[in-house]
Amino acid sequence: MPEFLELMPPQEALAVWLRAMPEPRVGVERIPSAQALGRVTAEAVRSPEALPGFARSTVDGYAVQARSTHGASDTLPAYLELVGEVPMGAAPGFAVGLGQAAVIHTGGMLPQGADSVVMLELTQTARAGEIEIFKAVAAGENVLKAGEDVGIGEEVLGRGVRLDAAAIGGLMALGLTEVAAARKPLAAVLSSGDEVVPPDRAVRPGQVRDVNSYALAALVESCGGEARLYGIVPDRAEALRAALRRALDEADFVVITAGSSASARDLTAAVIRESGAPGVLVHGVNVRPGKPTILGVCDGKPVVGLPGNPVSALVIARLFVRPLVARLLGAVPGKPQAAVPARLSLNLASQAGREDWVPVRLRREAQGWAAEPIFYKSNLIFSLAHADGLVCIPPDATGLEVGAAVEVVLL
Amino acid sequence: MPEFLELMPPQEALAVWLRAMPEPRVGVERIPSAQALGRVTAEAVRSPEALPGFARSTVDGYAVQARSTHGASDTLPAYLELVGEVPMGAAPGFAVGLGQAAVIHTGGMLPQGADSVVMLELTQTARAGEIEIFKAVAAGENVLKAGEDVGIGEEVLGRGVRLDAAAIGGLMALGLTEVAAARKPLAAVLSSGDEVVPPDRAVRPGQVRDVNSYALAALVESCGGEARLYGIVPDRAEALRAALRRALDEADFVVITAGSSASARDLTAAVIRESGAPGVLVHGVNVRPGKPTILGVCDGKPVVGLPGNPVSALVIARLFVRPLVARLLGAVPGKPQAAVPARLSLNLASQAGREDWVPVRLRREAQGWAAEPIFYKSNLIFSLAHADGLVCIPPDATGLEVGAAVEVVLL
Repeated sequence: MPEFLELMPPQEALAVWLRAMPEPRVGVERIPSAQALGRVTAEAVRSPEALPGFARSTVDGYAVQARSTHGASDTLPAYLELVGEVPMGAAPGFAVGLGQAAVIHTGGMLPQGADSVVMLELTQTARAGEIEIFKAVAAGENVLKAGEDVGIGEEVLGRGVRLDAAAIGGLMALGLTEVAAARKPLAAVLSSGDEVVPPDRAVRPGQVRDVNSYALAALVESCGGEARLYGIVPDRAEALRAALRRALDEADFVVITAGSSASARDLTAAVIRESGAPGVLVHGVNVRPGKPTILGVCDGKPVVGLPGNPVSALVIARLFVRPLVARLLGAVPGKPQAAVPARLSLNLASQAGREDWVPVRLRREAQGWAAEPIFYKSNLIFSLAHADGLVCIPPDATGLEVGAAVEVVLL
Repeated sequence: MPEFLELMPPQEALAVWLRAMPEPRVGVERIPSAQALGRVTAEAVRSPEALPGFARSTVDGYAVQARSTHGASDTLPAYLELVGEVPMGAAPGFAVGLGQAAVIHTGGMLPQGADSVVMLELTQTARAGEIEIFKAVAAGENVLKAGEDVGIGEEVLGRGVRLDAAAIGGLMALGLTEVAAARKPLAAVLSSGDEVVPPDRAVRPGQVRDVNSYALAALVESCGGEARLYGIVPDRAEALRAALRRALDEADFVVITAGSSASARDLTAAVIRESGAPGVLVHGVNVRPGKPTILGVCDGKPVVGLPGNPVSALVIARLFVRPLVARLLGAVPGKPQAAVPARLSLNLASQAGREDWVPVRLRREAQGWAAEPIFYKSNLIFSLAHADGLVCIPPDATGLEVGAAVEVVLL
């Protein structure tokens, strides 16, 4: 079967593929919030209580009734009676009336009657049991009201939010020590190719070690998924069919790196086509590297066939596997990728009508970052290992000129 | 003791602090390369063998001697005798002489005698046992020579390199299934404050849950370190002293979040000062939020005292704990932070002479990303949980105007 009858642009190929997955979300599990870094919320989180639970001071100073300070100034201070000190971590056992003040620390609970706090710097101890106030405060000044951060029942985190350090802190603030997270999507990673041997094996002439299984497993992991290696499958239809069957049964999606030859790639496509409906959706993407990419869905489970060349496999995995994992996690789309603005240090040629992704190294210069393209032949894994990121040459360009402003997508 | 006698700029404070650590590197451990994602190499990696180990074809086609094709063209093809097919994964059992050709697949090993490969597209089967070649090839064309990716003994990864998917693939390509990695630096995280209770506890009036321990542990983890929680310490010198002693003995560095009041912060500084030489190096940094930051070293172990306000604690941890962890890992500095160029959607005021970090939310607009500042009072943890990144207002500015081009450092 001829390859690449129609080369689809990468964004269109991704859209076609994702649309063919009816309900691609993985299951939900409740996990300790303390171990939820990088996980994605499976449902919106609503606050079970108000935060803060009581009016707190945001400064060190004196809790007062604002009207007790009206008209106070440097030349005409207000004199207030000191009635106590607010203990940290407990409710004050007294109230503050008109003409009275209480020592309060940052985070301390406002005593009954008090509605504002005068900063320490604007006061002076007049004599035992009395303070001078040099500036009036308004009601609510230097106070965080009860519920000002979060009200009861308020949605504090949406569904599909990737939890970072601040979000984990927020859950803890509300006493939510568990959170409902999307289960990590499980990728079955298959390598095919008669020439491929496991990495712990000495290679004989003609053989190469399995690079792709491990690189792709790491990439899946870095996107928030989990990977299980299904080993190296020989380039025979029945072997590939059996391995894919098992992978489809056990995992949430399947990543196959094809053997290097065109016939091995055609074999991959043929086996995907037989293994479930609708089968192969995209065969050939208008992108370099990675033209021979295969995108399929077998009875609801996504399958991607990546080129055997490790650089192509990784670049294509960034374009297709990363958004797939995000989709399976139910992660809210539309957040930017980590990127760095840079200037290109060399002219880069490309073919009009095709999207190119070029590995670059970043170098600090006086004016900012310089992006140095790394040139490589196929199969040079270290070209990518030495890169800091990728630069995209869009299909409507025939290259980029030295000095061009580019956005380097970080690896 | 008065706070903030001299406020140091953040970059200077960091330099002073890092300089005071004599040999801050953590130990080395050999780990499986397959589990090394995000780990940092503890020594340079040299290749034990050449890669590829043999000359390989980079295309599907025919292996030939280049001189057999000289002068070949569409109108005057060269006719070559077909002598065999190179098997995948084994050395070909035949040689290719002048006037001969052998079928070869991408990744196949060049037979003896052959020095180049003619692409399939430029050939045609003439009759059984013979092919027509329509274009001459040069010696070496479409061939990856032995050792062309990596030579024996060549340094493939430097020391201090953070391992990504491509680097893990590269290690596997060389049969290096183990790698020497810097041990994950262990942070002891202490929360102090009489008002702080564990997050699984119901709060009584005046109390708040421990947010900082968990948020900071997650931040340490996201930088490549490990965190152990040392619990909540009351605001008493002897309790803090004992907890810090144990933390210094057991961990590689200590992160203390001070109680909220000025006196609690002074207590932290005093206890750090007593717990080892040189003690407190920086007390007060010219940054907002986070002015009350304390940076110290106790007998070689770094200690950082963060403000109790969770937003300040996290922003300051990004400025100081993140580079500390990188330093302890021996990670090579100078790589860019993940950032996104954006336009500010509002005017932002700041005080000249002080560096400000403002949480922002990113919104996609026609021209690119818009950064919307999130305004907050102290202690509002969700202001940061809802942010996508931080914008820095440099000390020489008195603010940034709506529409200003900013770099949003991603959280």
